[in-house]
Order: sequence, then structure tokens, then C-alpha cells
Amino acid sequence: MKASQFFISTLKEAPADAEVVSHQLMMRAGMIKRLGAGIYNYMPMGLRVIRKVEAIIREEMNRAGAVELLMPVVQPAELWQETGRFDKMGPELLRVKDRHERDFIIQPTSEEVVTDIARQELRSYRQLPKNFYHIQTKFRDERRPRFGIMRGREFTMKDAYSFDRDAAGAAVSYQGMFDAYKRIFDRFGLQYRAVAADTGAIGGDLSHEFQVIADTGEDAIVYCPTSDYAANIELAEAVAPAAPRAAPGQALAKTPTPGKSTCADVATLLGLPLQQTVKSLVLATDELDERGDIVKSTVWLLLVRGDHDMNEIKVGKLPGLKAGWRFATVAEIEDHFGCKPGYLGPIGLKKPLQVIADRTVAGMHDFVCGANEADFHFTGVNWGRDLPEPTLVADIRNVLAGDPSPDGQGVLAIQRGIEVGHVFYLGTKYSQAMNATYLDANGKPQLMEMGCYGIGVTRILGAAIEQSHDARGIIWPASIAPFAAVLCPIGYDRSPEVKAAADALHAELLAAGVDVLLDDRGERPGAMFADWELIGVPQRVVLSDRGLKAGTVELQGRREDAASMVPLAEVAALVKGRLSA
Amino acid sequence: MKASQFFISTLKEAPADAEVVSHQLMMRAGMIKRLGAGIYNYMPMGLRVIRKVEAIIREEMNRAGAVELLMPVVQPAELWQETGRFDKMGPELLRVKDRHERDFIIQPTSEEVVTDIARQELRSYRQLPKNFYHIQTKFRDERRPRFGIMRGREFTMKDAYSFDRDAAGAAVSYQGMFDAYKRIFDRFGLQYRAVAADTGAIGGDLSHEFQVIADTGEDAIVYCPTSDYAANIELAEAVAPAAPRAAPGQALAKTPTPGKSTCADVATLLGLPLQQTVKSLVLATDELDERGDIVKSTVWLLLVRGDHDMNEIKVGKLPGLKAGWRFATVAEIEDHFGCKPGYLGPIGLKKPLQVIADRTVAGMHDFVCGANEADFHFTGVNWGRDLPEPTLVADIRNVLAGDPSPDGQGVLAIQRGIEVGHVFYLGTKYSQAMNATYLDANGKPQLMEMGCYGIGVTRILGAAIEQSHDARGIIWPASIAPFAAVLCPIGYDRSPEVKAAADALHAELLAAGVDVLLDDRGERPGAMFADWELIGVPQRVVLSDRGLKAGTVELQGRREDAASMVPLAEVAALVKGRLSA
Repeated sequence: MKASQFFISTLKEAPADAEVVSHQLMMRAGMIKRLGAGIYNYMPMGLRVIRKVEAIIREEMNRAGAVELLMPVVQPAELWQETGRFDKMGPELLRVKDRHERDFIIQPTSEEVVTDIARQELRSYRQLPKNFYHIQTKFRDERRPRFGIMRGREFTMKDAYSFDRDAAGAAVSYQGMFDAYKRIFDRFGLQYRAVAADTGAIGGDLSHEFQVIADTGEDAIVYCPTSDYAANIELAEAVAPAAPRAAPGQALAKTPTPGKSTCADVATLLGLPLQQTVKSLVLATDELDERGDIVKSTVWLLLVRGDHDMNEIKVGKLPGLKAGWRFATVAEIEDHFGCKPGYLGPIGLKKPLQVIADRTVAGMHDFVCGANEADFHFTGVNWGRDLPEPTLVADIRNVLAGDPSPDGQGVLAIQRGIEVGHVFYLGTKYSQAMNATYLDANGKPQLMEMGCYGIGVTRILGAAIEQSHDARGIIWPASIAPFAAVLCPIGYDRSPEVKAAADALHAELLAAGVDVLLDDRGERPGAMFADWELIGVPQRVVLSDRGLKAGTVELQGRREDAASMVPLAEVAALVKGRLSA
Repeated sequence: MKASQFFISTLKEAPADAEVVSHQLMMRAGMIKRLGAGIYNYMPMGLRVIRKVEAIIREEMNRAGAVELLMPVVQPAELWQETGRFDKMGPELLRVKDRHERDFIIQPTSEEVVTDIARQELRSYRQLPKNFYHIQTKFRDERRPRFGIMRGREFTMKDAYSFDRDAAGAAVSYQGMFDAYKRIFDRFGLQYRAVAADTGAIGGDLSHEFQVIADTGEDAIVYCPTSDYAANIELAEAVAPAAPRAAPGQALAKTPTPGKSTCADVATLLGLPLQQTVKSLVLATDELDERGDIVKSTVWLLLVRGDHDMNEIKVGKLPGLKAGWRFATVAEIEDHFGCKPGYLGPIGLKKPLQVIADRTVAGMHDFVCGANEADFHFTGVNWGRDLPEPTLVADIRNVLAGDPSPDGQGVLAIQRGIEVGHVFYLGTKYSQAMNATYLDANGKPQLMEMGCYGIGVTRILGAAIEQSHDARGIIWPASIAPFAAVLCPIGYDRSPEVKAAADALHAELLAAGVDVLLDDRGERPGAMFADWELIGVPQRVVLSDRGLKAGTVELQGRREDAASMVPLAEVAALVKGRLSA
């Protein structure tokens, strides 16, 4: 393709509202154009990337035996009422009434519609397993859309849904999708990790996120460099201390810590390691009556080591806290501890309450905690001697880098990631709600076992850029770059030799299957080079009169600091070789 | 592809709500599945056709220099308020409020958004002409969705928009799209006509519809078999009678026609040709005040020959009627004619009114019309002698087959068509409303001249089927068939020879670039053949033990009544030859 037949629009400066680098670079490179909050036009340059991403997904989904169909954007509310999601989902579900005042939604996903198809179409065990997918426009009315197309409102997603005879079959389908996703992300040329993820309300242990590695990612990914272990920090187990708890070595002492209300400040004041302190977190749960009014509240004390962070997902799975919890109010705290926050601890409580200790805390001795008196902490605290053993010992903290891996194969490392894919075993959550059954070999109706599998198509663009860019712009992997190579002739309109060589090389590369663009815009070399570095095309060939006299052109990979002079006759093969490397 | 990796779901009977044959056959062939009124799932078999249609459109649009982008489905109301369409459009425009109560619409087309892009991105005359297109989901909240995906609510459309420096440039862009559309429809393999169409409120003479020929079409297409002339009947000119009006030959006579209120009944009663009668049509126009209340109504009498139909589009272009007209009420009629409808005529009016005669009527003599008295008509009526010449003579009727062609090159024929494409010169309608200007060579802002060009992607499927089907099912053109060929092995699971031959032929055809499906479902031959005839695959190869023993297979084109025995070794080349023929 020639630039004159295409549309290129670059900006020197990113718009002020572009917060993250991928958003800034996509705007500057003319890939997207804002239409409204969280709603973007995909400009020609960006659409090319989307189409390449879609093509790779489609090929691998088909290879894995999934069948493509297309479910509507505007969906009748009835099906969403069957599963209860029409009422349960918050305002992120965009609801709309048609001219007859009937309710519809703009789809954020398609579990209901695909389950409706399955219960009508998949009637016999002989038709199972089956996996349907579509690549379709989605809408989620985010309260605060941001990060460009990374958290937009309208976006493109590939969502697949598997239907199986039983849980064992569903596990096979799940593994098939997991393997397909690995092939997809390998072909994208991105650094990623498949990590075990929380399964939320559905339970079970089959859920993996595909995280693109990027320092700016919102998710923390835990992995073991010496084994296969990888999980979202929400899920990663902090294993119990290997050593048994040591015997008390110090006497309990109440120590003044005026104005020192954090573990770090207390440790510094006392000249002790932060690892010897214990942090008190006070939560509350509420019992509601039928009308939703609070009948009774219970207060809970959770203890984690001073350098540890409480893991809210893990806490949400504890007995008594599963149904939902909140942080206690100051009034509740003062009522139970007789003290304001900052100096709380498990000794000398004003009212009895449940004490849940993290496994690390349960293994500590001679530790420091608040004395339930302003400006005082206890030191030399020991379980059993100074206070009763905790009501419950559990894993309630985030792991730290250096913690032992749960698989016993090494120690954990942590990096940041951007979630771009998710495979999820659904079980019978939707098939039960919608009575999606098939007839088994005995003619008996059975609920279908389901899985769902998503890839954020448009989000891939943002994640790829967050992972790979430099001061000059985007650095695309060759497989999803808008163009794999660009020819930059200097003086295309002036020099017949340059024009002839550029046109011939263009034709040669196209014939060799290289997705190449010939920049015939007549821009100055500096501006032209800057555009293509910003847009991030992997391979650039510069043709000039001077070089051509010597039979050479300049070849430069987007990651290279300088160009190489290579013979014109060899450059097509070189470019092709580099792109398939 | 093998059937076992795909999804095939056929029905013996069409659902009761499927009114037209294309809807019935698409449902029976498992191409679409109803989700709600006018909203369909595109099942795998139907989606394959859509993708092929899209691919052809995309290739030819790109070849014509148009650039693909993607504009959102959910669009902010602000732009639609700029052009006034947010308020002007009826309930077919689906309006939605987001969580912040801001107004949005679900796009039916994208003039506003693309003009917004153009006014920001196309700043210099050097960037023009430019043509942007997208293939995107559309929504029109039809009052009465019907005919399956032919008049659905959610559908896929390709819409392109051209931007030019001036009207001359816009005409070149228009012609480029017109030519591209011809290539597109040629490649679809459909019988179609590009017909001149009405330009509605915008005016100008550049508008063509691409009509797929089908007896069931909603549009009447007028064409001249001996010339290039083709137009929608809405637009087709009924030329003035060549011969001058003949002198009166009869005396005016009031004749009893008891109970005969139609021209046909009167002609029969009087033993006269219908062509000697004149039909009176009474219209009214209203003048409104600022609040929209009617201040004054004017009544008009329109006269067309008894066998002619009034053309509402032509009437809407007459002086005095341009701003909108309606049929007169019975009260208005009685007030002006002193008679109830059925016996009206231009002689002896109670109140004076404007009389508009069709050109044919103005050329008639000795004609018959109502006497403005119940159960009486006048015969032998003559202009000038019995009544004044009409206030206005104009072309206000639909042409009839056999009428002279407006280009003077023959006589007109009429066929039915389904509108699937439309090219339209917009002028500055949108660029003016949205102030979309560019700087000309002198640095002066100028309004861009626009054109818009649509193809109903999903509608193509319905139109193709309406055009081409038989009692057994759909007959797809090869270029857009879900599969170009199908292999039907008899005993695939039983006979190693059949399986080996079918697998080898499948591989051979795929390698030759034929989009072939191997039916490995193990259906009985009769059911298998019926499925593929219903689905409409162009070429079918049946492999059986008996045939293979003689080295032959059966080859049958979908339009053929019987199969031919052909050598197995030659069948791949034969299939490929037939498909590219």
C-alpha cells in the first residue's frame, strides 16, 4: 500500500487527557480518536492492528475447534432477567428501552444469549462438546473510563463459551482453550503470563488470567522463576512458616510510642525490624433483615505482620466473612477497643471479639502490637502467655517477593501485568439458571457444564504498547504491527531512480507476502522517520539517491539504534527474514 | 473443514412467523436464529456468508481508494444535535442515556461522526479527496420489523463517506463509488440493476440505488431493455404524449353510474376502455403557525388517467406541495365538491381549487370523470370546451410497462427489486451543519462536498435468496456461498475406502483454494443431500463404495437436476473449474 492511498495523521503532542503512555502514543500515532468519554473511533492505522489481532485469534480459535457465530449488540432484557443479571448488575450494564418501551441491554458479554442458543440447539449428548465464539462490540458503562482504550466503555472482545456433558469434559474444553490462548499470545509476540486467578462467587479452581507484562499494569502477578507457578496476587498462597513458633524470649512490656501510629514508625522508634510488629485491622459484618436493614453487626480483629498487606479476596473467603464485610467504623472500634485507631491490638479488649491471625503472625514470638491505649504499644508479646491463641489462623495476606513458592519449588517473584485474557470454568451457573439441558445417553436431561473465555481485542493494543515503547514511540511486535515494514524514499517525487527503486522494492515485498507501506507523501526525511518511529513499524528501509548509486539502502529495525547499509538486491530477503525471525 | 468441527442445524419446517421465502430458508438452513423482534443471531452457517460478502466489499472499497476505519456503535447525542437529526428523526433512532443521564444514540448511520472526524483531520485541500468507510453494526428501531434480516432492527452495513474540494470533485468520487459498487455486485454473482433514485430533500441528480432483481422485491424498477435507462419508479419520468390533443368528438353528457365509484367499474359499465377515464385525487396542504397549529388549509385536485397510479414522490416536488401534503378529509372534499368521494371530477366545483393534471390527462379528449353528484359521471369531457385548462400540467404518475423511455431509445419495462446499495451525493448538507471546512489553495476556508455510499451487508443475504432459490432450498452464487463445495461420503465411518478417498479429495480441494466442507456427520444419504440442497452449496460430490470401485464419484451442481459420474482423479479440477466459471 502507498501512504497516499491510506490515512496517516500524527501529533507532536499528546492531548492533555491522555494519562498513560499507551493512550498518549495511540493518540499521537493517529490510531484512535476520542468521540466521547471512553468511546473512540478506530482510525485506519489502529484498525489495521485490530484486524491483525482478530485474525490471529480467529485462526487459533478455529484450530481449537471453536465455531464462530455473531450474537447481537442489542439484546432483549428477558434473558438477562432469567439469570437475574438484569437487576443484579450495576449501572455498568447499559439499559435501553425501544419504541415500544420494552427493555434491552447493550451487551457487555453474551452468557445469556449463548446459553439460550445452546438450550435450543444442543439437545443431545452427541452434539457435545461444543464451543461457540464471536468477536463483537461490547459496552460497559464504566463510572470513570480511563487509560484510553484500556478501560473504555465501548470495546471489542472475543468471547467464547464451551458446553460439555460433564465437569470432566468441561475441564478438557478448558485446557483446550488454555492451550489456544497460549498459542494466540505467543503469536502476538507479547511477553505474558498465564496466572491462576480468583474464581469469585462461582468457586472451583479453574480460572486463569492472561496477563501482558508491563510495569504500568494494574495487576500484581506472582510467579516462581524456578517452576511453573504463577498466580494473580489476589489468589497466590502465602505458605505457613516452616519453622515452629519459638518460645518467648522477652517479657511483655508496655512501651510509650507517642504519636507513632504506624508499624513502620513504631519499629523505627524502638529500633526493631518491621517484621517484628503486628498490624491490627478491624472489620465488621452486618446481619440484615428482610427489608435490608441492619439487625446486628459483628466486629472482627485481623492481624497481619507489619510489613504485610491484607488480601481482601482471601479475607472474603473466610467463614463468617464470605457474605460480605466492611471496615469497622471509628465508633465500633472505640466501643470494642476503648481506644482510637493507631494503637490497637489483641490484648486487653474492652469487648470480646473474633481474632483472626495471619499464618505468619500465628508463628511469631516477642512481637510488638498496639496496647489499646493512645501513644502506647506492647513489646515482647507472646501467644498463649500474654493472650489466648487466635480464634482462627488463616492465610489473609498478600505474598511478598522472596516468599516461598506454594509448589515448594523456589521463592516467589512479583511483576505487574495487564489482564487481556481470561479463561473461566463456569460450571452450571448459567445452564441451571436458564435450564439449559441436553439428553444424555439414557435419554435423561442433564445440565450442561460451561466455560467462558474472553480476550479484550482492543485492550491488546494498549497492553502491547505499555509493554513495548520508547521515547520515540510505539514498538509493535511484527505480527500485529499496522505495517510490518515501511519504505521511506527520499525524493520520491524528484528522483526517478529513487521512485523506480522504491516502487520495485514495494512490489517485491508485497509479492513476498510482506505487509509493507511505501511512504510517498513527500515529507521531509526527519518528519517521515519520526512518524514511523512513533507509529512503531518494525522494519524501515530508506532509499536515497546517494545510497542507490552504491547499490545500497538503509535498513533499520525499530529496536535498533542505527541503520545498516545493505545491498538493494538483498534487502527484501533481509526484511522478510527479520520479520519471520 | 469437516462438519464435525462446524455447526449445522437444519429444520424441516420454517417457523410460523417467517413470512418471506428468504426468511424461511435462512431459518431452516440454520443461518440465523431469532433473538427478539428484528434481532437475530448469525449462526455459523450464516456468518460465513456475511464474512464473504464483507471481504468482497472490503477488497473493492480499498481498490477504489477508500480507507477503512471503525466508528462506534454508541454515539454521543451532541453531534446528532448539531445536525438536528437527534430531534428530527423519529423513534427509529434508538436513544439511550448513560449512567450520568447523558444522551447517546445507537447508530443507524454515521454521517455526523465521520463529518466530525473530517472537520478535525482534513484541514487542507491537499488532503482531499478522501473517502472513509466502515463495516459496522447498525440499529434502526423499525416500527414493524419483518422479512427476517431484510428489514431487521440490528443489521450490518458498510457505509462510506467521501469528502471533496468541490462539486466537480464530488462527482468524480461518486462515479468511483458507482463503479466500485458495480464490481462488488458483479462479484456477488447477483442479477442487479443500478437505477437512478430520488434524492429526497437534498436535491441534485446524483443518487443511484443498487437493486437486486427479485419478484418479491418491494421496489419497482423501471428500465429500457434497448438502452441504459434505469430508474426507481419513484423517479422514472412519464414522458408527455407525443401526439397533440385531439379535437372534441363527443358532446358532454351526464350519465348515471349507480354504485360505480371506481374508474374500472365505470369503464366496464359504459363499455369504454379504462384509458378513457380520469381519476380525481384530492390532496390538502396546511399552513402552520409558530406553535405548529394549522392556520389555513388548501385543497388540491389532481387528475390521473384511470389506469394510472399517482406517484407520491413526484407530487411532493410540485410547487405548493413541496413542504408536505396529505390526502384531504371527507369533510374537506364535500365542502369543495359538494359530493362524497367516488364521483368527483373537475367540472362544477362548489369552491374553486387548484387543478393539477397529469401530462397524459392534459392530452386526453372525450374522457370520462365524476360529475360531483353521487351515482353520476360525465362522458365526452373536453378541456377548454367543458372546463378550463388545468392550473398546472405535470408528470405526477407512475410509468407503466410499454411507456416510451425518457431517453427516447425504446419502451420501458418494469421489474421488482430489493434495494441493497445506495450511492448518494450529499453536497454540503452535513458539512454546512457541522462547519466542516478545509483551507483551499488560497488559505480560505471552504465547505467540503460530501457523498455517502451504503451497502446492507446482512440484507444481501436475504436478497440473494429471494432472487435465487427453488423448492429444495437456497441456491447461492459461488462467491458468497457458505461453502463453495461439499463432499458427501456415504459410509464415511464404515468404509475405509470411502473415508480415504473423501479425506484425500478434501485435502486436494483445500490445497487448490476451494472452500470445501467434508460432511463427516454420518447422516443417511437422503438427509445429508437434503441438508446441502437446503443450505444451497453450489457443488456437491458424493463418494460411495460402488462408485469408487469404478474410480468415479458423483458431481452435481446445485442448479442441476441430476449428478454426473466423473472420474475421482478429475473431480477436483472439475469442481474448481465450475466454481471459477
